[in-house]
Amino acid sequence: MGYCVIEASKNIFCIKSIDVLKLSSKKDHYQRLQSVHQKITELVDQFTPDEFAIEAPFFGKNVQSMLKLGRAQGVAIAAAMTKNIPVTEYSPRKIKQSITGNGNADKEQVWKMLQRLTALPDKPKYYDATDALAVAICHFYGSNSITSKKSGTKKAAGWEKFIQQNPQRILKIR
Amino acid sequence: MGYCVIEASKNIFCIKSIDVLKLSSKKDHYQRLQSVHQKITELVDQFTPDEFAIEAPFFGKNVQSMLKLGRAQGVAIAAAMTKNIPVTEYSPRKIKQSITGNGNADKEQVWKMLQRLTALPDKPKYYDATDALAVAICHFYGSNSITSKKSGTKKAAGWEKFIQQNPQRILKIR
Repeated sequence: MGYCVIEASKNIFCIKSIDVLKLSSKKDHYQRLQSVHQKITELVDQFTPDEFAIEAPFFGKNVQSMLKLGRAQGVAIAAAMTKNIPVTEYSPRKIKQSITGNGNADKEQVWKMLQRLTALPDKPKYYDATDALAVAICHFYGSNSITSKKSGTKKAAGWEKFIQQNPQRILKIR
Repeated sequence: MGYCVIEASKNIFCIKSIDVLKLSSKKDHYQRLQSVHQKITELVDQFTPDEFAIEAPFFGKNVQSMLKLGRAQGVAIAAAMTKNIPVTEYSPRKIKQSITGNGNADKEQVWKMLQRLTALPDKPKYYDATDALAVAICHFYGSNSITSKKSGTKKAAGWEKFIQQNPQRILKIR
């Protein structure tokens, strides 16, 4: 399980913690769930985050792996919920779109873009950790656009409104 | 979500609580997860159970519904885990087998058998609650057989051993 904690203020963010929790295949399913729950509880206690975001896939290898993934997410969500931290989820497509502009980007493309955005070292040790960073930045971008909407700089809702708001952009042809 | 709390001692058990938690479809996914987590936490605080058992399906309508089910189970499991209560899961087949002797029994057959085993009223209001009762009894039977195995009354491991242990059951034909 990859995780990442970022501190964000207005348009900038900095990484407070980024790593993976290794889940030994020797341990049984419930011990692994306990590790996930414990780790998230520790992170929540240490960093007292305001928000919590996860990746929610829409496809899986099979229903059994999705049930297991759901449980792992469930214990993580519970750890956030007990501290009343709101949870947001993003599809992998939305995350890739948000970072690279392309919803079908591969892991390396995402990583290269993350490298430009952050000051992380050359090669990631685990892509799971950088995936978590991608979720965090996606949520950061998302929250920022929500804030800007709230503060009044609304985007135009259609061409008609756009023309009203931007009369200088009309080309007059005779 | 159906739930049931039983108190068991040796060969008898009694029902302490049996009901369903109605999860309004008006509420969003996270509010419903919160309701599940809160309810299980309340039950755990009220009854301080020693053990926790859930039904774990092997098939689902689709991967999305399995992810959601997994999350719901995850937040419930987390509520049990925070109190160090061991979690056991049973397949629907195993539960039906344990109650009726038939792994393919339908809901009504299971209910009729549960009625014989317990003193519950005629018609169940919600099958989800009686399903939870079935899981509890399945776990009770399972724990009991483990106990009896531990106390030495082992079942015969094969025909050879069975004959050794039960010589009176051999029919001699001349």
